[in-house]
This record gives sequence, C-alpha cells and structure tokens, in this order.
Amino acid sequence: MLIVQKFGGTSVGTLERIEAVAQRVIETKNTGADVVVVVSAMSGVTNQLVEYGEHFSKQPNGVAMDMLLSSGEQVTTAILTIALNAKGYECVGLTGAMAGIITDDIHTKARIEKINTSRIKSELKAGKIVVVAGFQGIDEKGDITTLGRGGSDLSAVALAGALDADLCEIFTDVDGVYTTDPRIEPKAKKLDVISYDEMLELASSGAKVLQNRSVEMAKKLNVKLVTRSSFNHNEGTLIANEEDYMEAVLVSGIALDKNQARVTLRGVVDKPGIAAEIFSALASKNINVDMIIQNVGHDGTTNLGFTVPQNELEIAKETMQKLSAAKHVEYDDAIVKVSVVGVGMKSHSGVACTAFETLAKEGINIQMISTSEIKISVVVDQKYGELAVRVLHEAYKLDK
Amino acid sequence: MLIVQKFGGTSVGTLERIEAVAQRVIETKNTGADVVVVVSAMSGVTNQLVEYGEHFSKQPNGVAMDMLLSSGEQVTTAILTIALNAKGYECVGLTGAMAGIITDDIHTKARIEKINTSRIKSELKAGKIVVVAGFQGIDEKGDITTLGRGGSDLSAVALAGALDADLCEIFTDVDGVYTTDPRIEPKAKKLDVISYDEMLELASSGAKVLQNRSVEMAKKLNVKLVTRSSFNHNEGTLIANEEDYMEAVLVSGIALDKNQARVTLRGVVDKPGIAAEIFSALASKNINVDMIIQNVGHDGTTNLGFTVPQNELEIAKETMQKLSAAKHVEYDDAIVKVSVVGVGMKSHSGVACTAFETLAKEGINIQMISTSEIKISVVVDQKYGELAVRVLHEAYKLDK
Repeated sequence: MLIVQKFGGTSVGTLERIEAVAQRVIETKNTGADVVVVVSAMSGVTNQLVEYGEHFSKQPNGVAMDMLLSSGEQVTTAILTIALNAKGYECVGLTGAMAGIITDDIHTKARIEKINTSRIKSELKAGKIVVVAGFQGIDEKGDITTLGRGGSDLSAVALAGALDADLCEIFTDVDGVYTTDPRIEPKAKKLDVISYDEMLELASSGAKVLQNRSVEMAKKLNVKLVTRSSFNHNEGTLIANEEDYMEAVLVSGIALDKNQARVTLRGVVDKPGIAAEIFSALASKNINVDMIIQNVGHDGTTNLGFTVPQNELEIAKETMQKLSAAKHVEYDDAIVKVSVVGVGMKSHSGVACTAFETLAKEGINIQMISTSEIKISVVVDQKYGELAVRVLHEAYKLDK
Repeated sequence: MLIVQKFGGTSVGTLERIEAVAQRVIETKNTGADVVVVVSAMSGVTNQLVEYGEHFSKQPNGVAMDMLLSSGEQVTTAILTIALNAKGYECVGLTGAMAGIITDDIHTKARIEKINTSRIKSELKAGKIVVVAGFQGIDEKGDITTLGRGGSDLSAVALAGALDADLCEIFTDVDGVYTTDPRIEPKAKKLDVISYDEMLELASSGAKVLQNRSVEMAKKLNVKLVTRSSFNHNEGTLIANEEDYMEAVLVSGIALDKNQARVTLRGVVDKPGIAAEIFSALASKNINVDMIIQNVGHDGTTNLGFTVPQNELEIAKETMQKLSAAKHVEYDDAIVKVSVVGVGMKSHSGVACTAFETLAKEGINIQMISTSEIKISVVVDQKYGELAVRVLHEAYKLDK
C-alpha cells in the first residue's frame, strides 16, 4: 500500500499546523502504508516571495523567479521532515530536483516531463517517510523550475502516477467537493464520489477545490484522488473513473462563476473564416475564451457571443476594435455563469429542460446557453447568480 | 580580471540594500571585470529558520536542517539575480549545488571538498554575472549541506581559489580591519593591509570581521582578500601574504576577548602524561581550550592554567571534578584576554617588554602570559580590559 498525501498552504500555515500534519502522516504510516508527502509553501509565503521578485521588475527573470519561489516549498519540506524525525519517524525531505521531477524549461509554468523515482523508491524501501517539495522540478540544464498555479497538486498526482500509488489524498481546508458553494446554499452537501469529467466541468465553472491540470493528469494517469480536509477526520470526496463507482447520479453539482464577462458581436458577416479570425486574434493575446455561442444567422449575417475572464475584458475590447469583422460589439461584465454538472445527463433527457423551467419560474432571463455531454451552462444577469444556484440546487434535489 | 564579491547579511538585509548591492556589482562589471557574487541570507532570516527547525527538536535532523537553512541564501541569490537582470545585465543565479560546490556529508558544518567550476566558467564566458548562494553545497548523495558559521565567506574564498580569481572582496557593515575595536578606543585606525597570520591571531583574539576558517583557506589557496564596507566606497583592508607588502609594521592591532574564563590547577603532580590526561578529557567534551600555561614546578608539583570560552566553563568544571589529577582547582570568569598582534615582532625584540611595562604603569596585574611569534596575549582582571586596550594602543602608536 502506497499513499501520496499532499498538504496545501493553509494546512501547513503555522508550526502548529505542521505539527498536526506530521501527526496525520504518522497515523497513515502506522497503518503499515508507505507514505510520500507533498507540501506547499506555508500560506502567505509565496505571495511574499512574489512581492520580493516583482519589486525590481514587473516581469522578473523567470529562471531566478523559480529559484526564489521554490524556496517556499523547500522550507515546508524541511520543517515537516524535522517534525516527523523529532517524533521518532525516519524521514527524508527532497526538493523537486532531488525527487527526480524533470520538467521542460518553460520557467514559472513548466510541465513535468518525467520522474526519476529511484531515490524515492530506495528511501521508501529503507522504511522512510518521504517528504517532497511540491510545485517544483528541475530542467535538463539543472535549473530549478516551478509548475505554476496549483503546481503542488500536480506534483502529488504526477508522483502518485509514477510510483503507481494506491491513493493520492489532497488535503485542503475544505471537506471535499460540494454540490454547490455552501456560502451560497447552506443546504449544499459534500459528495462522496465524483468522476474526473464532472470534476473538470465543476472546476472550470468556478469550483476551486482542485485545478483542472491536476484532475486531467489524474484522469490520464488513472490516479485515484481524494480531496479532504486536514483540519478534521471527515471522509473526503473520491475523484475517480465513472466505472469505479456504481450509481451515477443525475446531477452532481451546481457551480457559479462570477469572473466572466460577455462579449456579443451583432451582424457578423456569415462566411467561413470569420470565427477563426476573431478567436485567433483573441488567442494571440492569450485571452481565455470560455463559452462560445453562434446561432444560425439570417440575411447573411449572424450574432456571435463568447465570454472571457473579467480581468481580460479590456484587452479583449482593444483586440476587437482592430477587427473589421466586429462592427457592432456589446460588452457586459455584470453577468455570471451558472453550470449544472452531472454524468447522469449523458443517459437522461430532460435535465436541461428542468434547468430552463426552474430559472424561468423565478423570472431569471437566460442570456446564453452552452452545453456539453455532462454540463449545462447558462449566462444570467449578475444579480441573479446566487438565486439561480439555490433554485437549481433544489430542483435537482441535491440537498437530499 | 576576475573578482569574487561576497555580501553579508546586513549588506543584503532589505530590498533597498539589495538594490544598492546590485549597483555595486554593476560598477565592478562595468570596469570590464568578470564578476562572481556570493551572498548570505538577508539578516534575520537564518535566525528565523533556526527557530522553525528548533521548534520541534533541540537537535533537529541535520539533513533537513541544511535544506531549511540553505533556503535563506537561495532567496537572496534569486532576488539579486532579478535585480541585476532588471537593470539590463545578463545574470544567472546558482545554488551551492548548481555552482558545483561539493562537500563532505557532515551536515550543518560541512567542509568543501572540491568545486566543479564548469557551469560558472561557461556562464562567465557567456558574459553573465554569476550570483552564487553562499554557505551551502551538496554532498555525494545529492543532499544539500551547509558550512556552519561564516560559511558564506568560505564559499567566496573557495570559489575565488577554484576560479583563480584576482581578488576576493568581502563586503560587511564595517570599513575593514582596525588596530583595535573603535568602540573601546576611538583613535583606532583602519589598517590598509594585514597579513593572513596577523588576521588569524586577531580573529582568534576576538576581532570578528572574518572567521578564521576563511582566512586559513585564503592563506592556503593564496587568495587575495579585501574586507570592506558595502555602505560606502572607502578602501578596505587587504589581507595577503607578508611578502605582498613592503613595510611590515611592528604591531598591527590590539584585540580584546571578553569571552574567556580562566581555570588554574595548583599542585599538579609533575610527571609525564598529566597534561595529556587533562586536555584529552576536555577535548572529549568538545571544549575549546585557548591559552595553556605551565611553569616549571618545584617539589614535584606544578601549576597549570588554561582558558576556555565562558559558556563552556560549567562543562569544564564537571570534567575537572572527575579527574584525580585536578585536586585544587580555581575558576575565574571575571577575566579578559588582551592580545598584541604584529608580524614585526618576529624581527624586533622588546615588543613584549613594552606591553608589560605599559600595563604595570597603570597598575594592571597580569595573571597569565602566552606568546607566539606574532602575538602576545595576557589575561587580566575583567575590569581592566578596555583600559588595557587603550594604553597598549597608545604605547604602540597605533593611532599615528
């Protein structure tokens, strides 16, 4: 039995918290399992380091930035190793480089290319608990790299995959994945299990328990993920293949994304290549377009709508102004995206219909609709966001 | 022309200070020289990290402790690299490991075994400024090591030696080496030059500009050292071979060591092996014995005196109590050691005599005397320490 446990920033935010984490790791070790622990920087540390780096330049040298940022996880790794050791457990701390995590050389957002597991395996064989600094690796040149946002989760999942671990537990400050945000709907329930695909749709719809890159990697490497709290012993949420659990529920959760803005182009000439022109222009500015809607047009023109993150709306505006295809453009950042996610939709009809009826009954106008096999997303006026979540949560009986 | 510049903790204590250091490095680079910069942790950081480590154990795991402590220099290295880069200078930051500093595996006080200079040389050849994290290296197993107190100076001197640098500048918050502590004698003068041996004697007598390990290494590797301030552009003090400068002065400086305690054994049986028994017992407890005095005895017994650091006096007492040879022992920690250092003593007689006469004239009783080729040390009552320094400073005309 090999378990990879990853503890995030708030879980290791103080020396007292690190002490609690050490206790948690020991409980797992005492079951007889081999344990590899992946840690983030203590909460606040990474922001502090970013401030240091950006004091001298808005775009600080990436190689140096990675050396700077990686120190945060290195510190937590060392402290946890000391704590475990002090409690009488043989333990070794490894930086990403020492753990054999090889990445490409795209600094500050590197991708893991392979993991040389020999050092970790030999330390595990010697009976030691292995603590690995998350978020970081080393490139072929020998320079330190970091993996970008959510990087420590990626480290944990990649290690779990490379070591063929039985389980990868991601510890955070929440109990797991909820049917919706409990701050919006107090009746929200924690899910026992959810599929990779549902998790991906929920995450991209604003549920921030796990970054999509980690879930995608877990799916690809077939790593069983559990997300749970390090502040209690509640069971978390298992994220696995659909086949790994029997009853697929109709709808797993409702997500609210307040960070979107809507762009609508009216009277676009309806000929091949227009959409390509628009979206390649946006892509060249690294704007993350989310929903894209185009209807069949009439009179040789069509309307085209899409959403972008709010903080990218200004650049999107500038980009659109340079495009001859975009004559009449509307912008609206007072919108939200509400998504209903569930693998059950695949085999059940009427799920979308329930959503539309429910919103209509409350007088909530739907501005845009986009659907996938397991998700229905609608864009509505910002002021209806929380209400939409609550009525949909009830409509799909997620509180039961 | 290759110059190694080392900046200590106060020199890089804030982002503003790091900015000033970057400016200083650039001035040197702009002379056309190749520059390798060695940095310490920002002042206060190492103490903070030690606190973290010692929170869980009085004797934290050494391997993990080194991983923890080394992060401090790593952070400064990255920030300085970013700062230099932001000012338009090509620059690369290297941890000790990346810089090829190979040590033994005695964690928290490792010794440098060799330096693989290929990475540094190729970066210098590419025209880059190279910034190296001081105080650290890597052992054969691939674990991070640290070099103990004064470790960053050691890194700088070792790199200067391995790279055959023309000069190694050690930047601190003082202007250089003084004839004595200016807080005791305001007339103290900064020395332009001093020999390695004099520096060693001064340092071991309480002058804390440089640790002895660094000076010894500089002497061994024939590295020209300059110690100077990073807070102004004053010339510092050159530390080199005696042959490298013409007029050897009679006396270079007066040092005061307040951290000694005196142990005197009376009526020790005067037979071979007694001293060995006493000092091997002290050595086995890692007690740093400094001065040792033994006079020819009479009646088959002799008196034996030595000094130990004050904070080791208690262990010394315990050790002595177990020794049958030590029947009548006196302890006194209200003493200080005053030393007169100068290579000129080698070829001039009367130097010691001047010291004794000067002290006698002030009514200062000398409790112990110990001399080497270039040093005279006396132990006197604590209350006379500063007075002794001032009158000796004047007697040897060090203020002229």
